[in-house]
Amino acid sequence: MNKTIALLTDFGLSDSYVGVMKGVMLSICPSARLIDLTHAIQPQNIRQAAYVLLTAYRYFSPDTVFLIVVDPGVGTPREPIAVQTHHGIYVAPDNGVLSYVLAHLEIERAVMLHNPDYHLPGISHTFHGRDIFSPAAAHLANGTPITELGPPINNLITLNTPVLAITSPRHICGEVLHIDHFGNIITSIGFLAWTTPDTLELTPQFGQNHPTLPAFRANDWHIIVGSQQLKGIRRSYGAVPPGTLAALVGSSGQLEIGVNQGSAAQALGVTLGDPVALNRE
Amino acid sequence: MNKTIALLTDFGLSDSYVGVMKGVMLSICPSARLIDLTHAIQPQNIRQAAYVLLTAYRYFSPDTVFLIVVDPGVGTPREPIAVQTHHGIYVAPDNGVLSYVLAHLEIERAVMLHNPDYHLPGISHTFHGRDIFSPAAAHLANGTPITELGPPINNLITLNTPVLAITSPRHICGEVLHIDHFGNIITSIGFLAWTTPDTLELTPQFGQNHPTLPAFRANDWHIIVGSQQLKGIRRSYGAVPPGTLAALVGSSGQLEIGVNQGSAAQALGVTLGDPVALNRE
Amino acid sequence: MNKTIALLTDFGLSDSYVGVMKGVMLSICPSARLIDLTHAIQPQNIRQAAYVLLTAYRYFSPDTVFLIVVDPGVGTPREPIAVQTHHGIYVAPDNGVLSYVLAHLEIERAVMLHNPDYHLPGISHTFHGRDIFSPAAAHLANGTPITELGPPINNLITLNTPVLAITSPRHICGEVLHIDHFGNIITSIGFLAWTTPDTLELTPQFGQNHPTLPAFRANDWHIIVGSQQLKGIRRSYGAVPPGTLAALVGSSGQLEIGVNQGSAAQALGVTLGDPVALNRE
Repeated sequence: MNKTIALLTDFGLSDSYVGVMKGVMLSICPSARLIDLTHAIQPQNIRQAAYVLLTAYRYFSPDTVFLIVVDPGVGTPREPIAVQTHHGIYVAPDNGVLSYVLAHLEIERAVMLHNPDYHLPGISHTFHGRDIFSPAAAHLANGTPITELGPPINNLITLNTPVLAITSPRHICGEVLHIDHFGNIITSIGFLAWTTPDTLELTPQFGQNHPTLPAFRANDWHIIVGSQQLKGIRRSYGAVPPGTLAALVGSSGQLEIGVNQGSAAQALGVTLGDPVALNRE
Repeated sequence: MNKTIALLTDFGLSDSYVGVMKGVMLSICPSARLIDLTHAIQPQNIRQAAYVLLTAYRYFSPDTVFLIVVDPGVGTPREPIAVQTHHGIYVAPDNGVLSYVLAHLEIERAVMLHNPDYHLPGISHTFHGRDIFSPAAAHLANGTPITELGPPINNLITLNTPVLAITSPRHICGEVLHIDHFGNIITSIGFLAWTTPDTLELTPQFGQNHPTLPAFRANDWHIIVGSQQLKGIRRSYGAVPPGTLAALVGSSGQLEIGVNQGSAAQALGVTLGDPVALNRE
Repeated sequence: MNKTIALLTDFGLSDSYVGVMKGVMLSICPSARLIDLTHAIQPQNIRQAAYVLLTAYRYFSPDTVFLIVVDPGVGTPREPIAVQTHHGIYVAPDNGVLSYVLAHLEIERAVMLHNPDYHLPGISHTFHGRDIFSPAAAHLANGTPITELGPPINNLITLNTPVLAITSPRHICGEVLHIDHFGNIITSIGFLAWTTPDTLELTPQFGQNHPTLPAFRANDWHIIVGSQQLKGIRRSYGAVPPGTLAALVGSSGQLEIGVNQGSAAQALGVTLGDPVALNRE
């Protein structure tokens, strides 16, 4: 037992919203382990949450219940859902927040959380995280079959995939997908893997329709981001002196631009959605 | 077993203060489940902590131990106390921080934490959260009878209740009580409940001396806040277009002013304590 | 069982980095209790992390595994290590972050985390917290002998100790070591303990080479910090009126300058590393 429930929301930590959801879950499933992915998703930024979930889910055991509440449509007819896969059960609003992770997983069952037996009594119109999603996650962690929670749903909503355009074997376009706590700029250009100490391979990872790119030499590429052009893709921040910009393969396999012991976001002034290009010599 | 201890402090998360309290509690009660309500109470803001506790306690199981450390009087003669009720045991300084929640609960026993057997050895003058309150919470989670912790106390300190003045069946005055992570403005006008899809009932919730107001039509009222006047009380943020102000019943039953997918606090520039009025047509 | 793993990083809480490390650890050691010391260490500030660890470790039970990831050298040849002591096992990069705490503990065994059986497969060059340190901590919490993780290491890297110069029985110099969430200014002048209600004793605590100073009267000293001179060392913030500066012995035994119900850092404008002096009349 001792199922893990992993939480991902835009609720922040300055109110008791997250704590209250945990109270609800422990009342239903006292043995659950409650783990925070992050609660600092930008308010209502479904796409950022979808990305963060994609980078995290595989590090949790396959019986984990993921509870994602980034829900601009709360109180409107958008459906609350639960999706069972071979690597995790996902409880979330049906607004596309699961679509990046579901591009990598086979859906075994998906249901709408319509059964009032698994809601809190007297549900509010503004906090389904507490009244619908948390009870569902806790009952699933208790072993309640997903089909108990409500009727099946097909055709889940999907987000546009992040930009990844391989316009020629010499030109790749992407976008800034995330800026992390350190100011590292994480792009949509991935999944990148080192095949030898000098060569990289690119496999689209958000379900985009591009083929795997043959392995290429890391030093043959120029990276254009903001007003800067960088040469080569490095193996670690330590490969350049402190204070210097470097492009490298980040911990989730995307092209990432950072400053050794500094903030690339500050140095370059880029924001989410800005273009990033790779040009081969 | 596996009692839950729910923590509420103004310690923030940038120091190890909260982590140290958890270390102390796990040393005494290794099976305790430690849940954070929030640690982002404004420094020394007893009233904000009292409000947050009121909105949260009922979602935890009745055998929860609540540990509240917002303690401007640390090192002065204010008493450290524990209060047993039918829904939770509360460990806190006696400065009124429990008074909103205790307006809803019957006190079974209240004691002063004077027994040094349940303190850390060599208590400091600045961090009773670590030296007195955390050990008490952990011993209570272990099942130690509350009467072991010290002698009884009567006449606990109470805070002034938030403003809720029903000056006539057509005029209600309140104040801004809390501004949440999303910029939603939460007022002292509650507890509000929908009795039909169009009508609301108001029951004072902080122990104020007003009678329950008969059910009234949500569309008959104007809400005045900052320099704005809004018409009607909505059922959810989704009832108005994105970027639009709306008044509605928040997740804890109070009148709340928000912007669909935006920040009302930013739009209106109000702060804690500002007046809010309801006028009926 | 149910070992505690206490986490200390500079990762912040706005990404999923910490959550991912927890997923890795629970996959390996499902019964571990994961406690956050703080994740708000300034990026790459090894010395601040060393200080925070020193103030926290003794409040955890001796079988705790401490996981410290403040790692500017990730991807360079700095060693990942684990150090077993009579009070805790410490998993960290060998960059000095353990040196303050190890000045108080006897090292039983120290190893380099070289055994790939205890790494995640396919380790990244940028996130050893996930790929090397978290698995090591979880295996140690599972009871894996530390010698399994890799070969021994001697001569761990140590940081310069914080400034504490007892230049005469009438002059003590130190520095600002930490500024906490409340704006309290915590100095390197400690460990201070009250021997009577009026007298204090000073024992250097970071392994500095000064003798214990004989007990002295708290009211005989002037404290110089920023442009201010304060007279006497108080027992608690409550000993001065709200809004007033006071010097006192903080909860970890260091000389601390604060404002009762206010922020000393704001009032004095000092920053980390600024000098603090004690002069005796």
